[in-house]
Amino acid sequence: MGDACGVGPELLLRAWKDGVLAADLVAFGDLAALQLANEKLGLGVEIHVVDVAGAANDRVEGKLNLVDLGVLSGDEITIGEVSPACGEAAVRYVQAAVSSALDGGIDGFCTLPINKEASRHAFPDFEGHTELIAGICGVRNYTMMLAGPDLICTHVSTHVPLSEAIERVKTARILEVVRLTHETVRRLRPQVRIAVAGLNPHAGEHGAFGDEDAAEILPAVEQARAEGIDAFGPVPPDTLFMKAVAGDYDAVVCMYHDQGHIPMKLHGFADAVNVTVGLPIIRTSVDHGTAFDIAYQGVASTQNLVNAFEMAVQLAGSGD
Amino acid sequence: MGDACGVGPELLLRAWKDGVLAADLVAFGDLAALQLANEKLGLGVEIHVVDVAGAANDRVEGKLNLVDLGVLSGDEITIGEVSPACGEAAVRYVQAAVSSALDGGIDGFCTLPINKEASRHAFPDFEGHTELIAGICGVRNYTMMLAGPDLICTHVSTHVPLSEAIERVKTARILEVVRLTHETVRRLRPQVRIAVAGLNPHAGEHGAFGDEDAAEILPAVEQARAEGIDAFGPVPPDTLFMKAVAGDYDAVVCMYHDQGHIPMKLHGFADAVNVTVGLPIIRTSVDHGTAFDIAYQGVASTQNLVNAFEMAVQLAGSGD
Repeated sequence: MGDACGVGPELLLRAWKDGVLAADLVAFGDLAALQLANEKLGLGVEIHVVDVAGAANDRVEGKLNLVDLGVLSGDEITIGEVSPACGEAAVRYVQAAVSSALDGGIDGFCTLPINKEASRHAFPDFEGHTELIAGICGVRNYTMMLAGPDLICTHVSTHVPLSEAIERVKTARILEVVRLTHETVRRLRPQVRIAVAGLNPHAGEHGAFGDEDAAEILPAVEQARAEGIDAFGPVPPDTLFMKAVAGDYDAVVCMYHDQGHIPMKLHGFADAVNVTVGLPIIRTSVDHGTAFDIAYQGVASTQNLVNAFEMAVQLAGSGD
Repeated sequence: MGDACGVGPELLLRAWKDGVLAADLVAFGDLAALQLANEKLGLGVEIHVVDVAGAANDRVEGKLNLVDLGVLSGDEITIGEVSPACGEAAVRYVQAAVSSALDGGIDGFCTLPINKEASRHAFPDFEGHTELIAGICGVRNYTMMLAGPDLICTHVSTHVPLSEAIERVKTARILEVVRLTHETVRRLRPQVRIAVAGLNPHAGEHGAFGDEDAAEILPAVEQARAEGIDAFGPVPPDTLFMKAVAGDYDAVVCMYHDQGHIPMKLHGFADAVNVTVGLPIIRTSVDHGTAFDIAYQGVASTQNLVNAFEMAVQLAGSGD
């Protein structure tokens, strides 16, 4: 459900009402927040509280089935403003969903946006959704994938200073991300041609502009190819993304956050969804924030949620 | 004219024949190369050799007026392959054009692509077109601008390793690039709202991912604003370019080569032209290479040359 002060509750209700969340959905959230959104926007979505997400005989068809964490009573929901209680609640929903996914109660899940500042009141070390989920799963080797209709990017590093991102451009890590990318994209595309981006301008231009491309990236590409992965690179970054969009590649392994995020946002802002690759469970996420400025107004687009949900369904259905 | 072994000669002739190079054009090149392209492609463009570019009474209307540097006889033109003689000749054309521009013989010029490897045979220290031109002009403070119909980017640094690019993110240099950007974009656009990109993910997210955004970029933006420049930032890089394309900004000051080049190539590959900003003369360039693989075949698009030429005309006509 995401942070109750943002657009999460209404996006869930509105998308549900539109009938576009097709699978056997169970929501994890707070009944109080969904009732508030129901009232504010006159949605009239019928909600059925279930005890356990995976208990099929507890579900009711035609209603939004909800695992009600019961953290919020309603008064704490300061629409459009940071609420420590809602920040804590948002983390509780995710913890419950991850536990259910690890237990096999659900086949995968999709997260709506949380507010880091709000969640840090109760959890001072909170780094973000993805780090939280990976931590519960006990996984250290994962990568953020942004997936749109004609461009898929994964990242060697994400939320670190650019100087540290350069330090993380090492053969072992790149190879790991190439492998994770291959494992996931083969569930989504008929073929998996992976472009591994260079780090430096023109991928270093034969060493004229930096040596990481030849020293760290090339060996990872060679090893991946030796393992049967259809990998290419290091590819000069500036022309790579237009080639990928044109269909030359099925996925791009990016060396740092903005190398992938700049073209993804420019090319397919509304369409791209976030997939955490490398977890033992399936987790997708919308790629937008809480949008506090338009929360509970009924104007936020449900399209990204629909895309992220469908991606989770697709990945769950393609399982090994 | 660019390197005689690439697409330069034919692009010049074909665009001239199409009548789309509207101003009082004088070409700098080798008659032998243009004759070869004329013959190979059956273009029949009439060429008139002038002694001095700026001597109006020496020109002939209806013909392509050429300052013939006379470096090549014809045999050295190894179409589609590196030729040291053609590489040297390409540098001579540029030197002549720069001299003419500095003397006031021409109002500005547009360069066609050269081959660095070829030019390094005669000039081992040759770094590139732009560095050559800036060197002749005695200018050290300049920046590469990529300009398309709805996105203009300038760069704090370009052809250096990414690790060195980070070192160059300093307030004084950023401020200089903001000023140069303002000076040029005001000749092209009715208003000049300049977004200064952050360096780190989310522009550092309040110091969580690096300190350059707050320590180096913000002071440059503040100083620029104090000087009356409509500057904003540091702006989170990932969503900046979609905002600029949507019309929120008129130009983007980028912190490194690929930050600007990735969105420019993805968004407007054929349209974007290269402008060297900060020179005492007007110089634009096509933003593509010699395309050796399709040279003298008549298939390379003249569109980028037309755009680059028009940009030079526009900048020359808007003078101070």
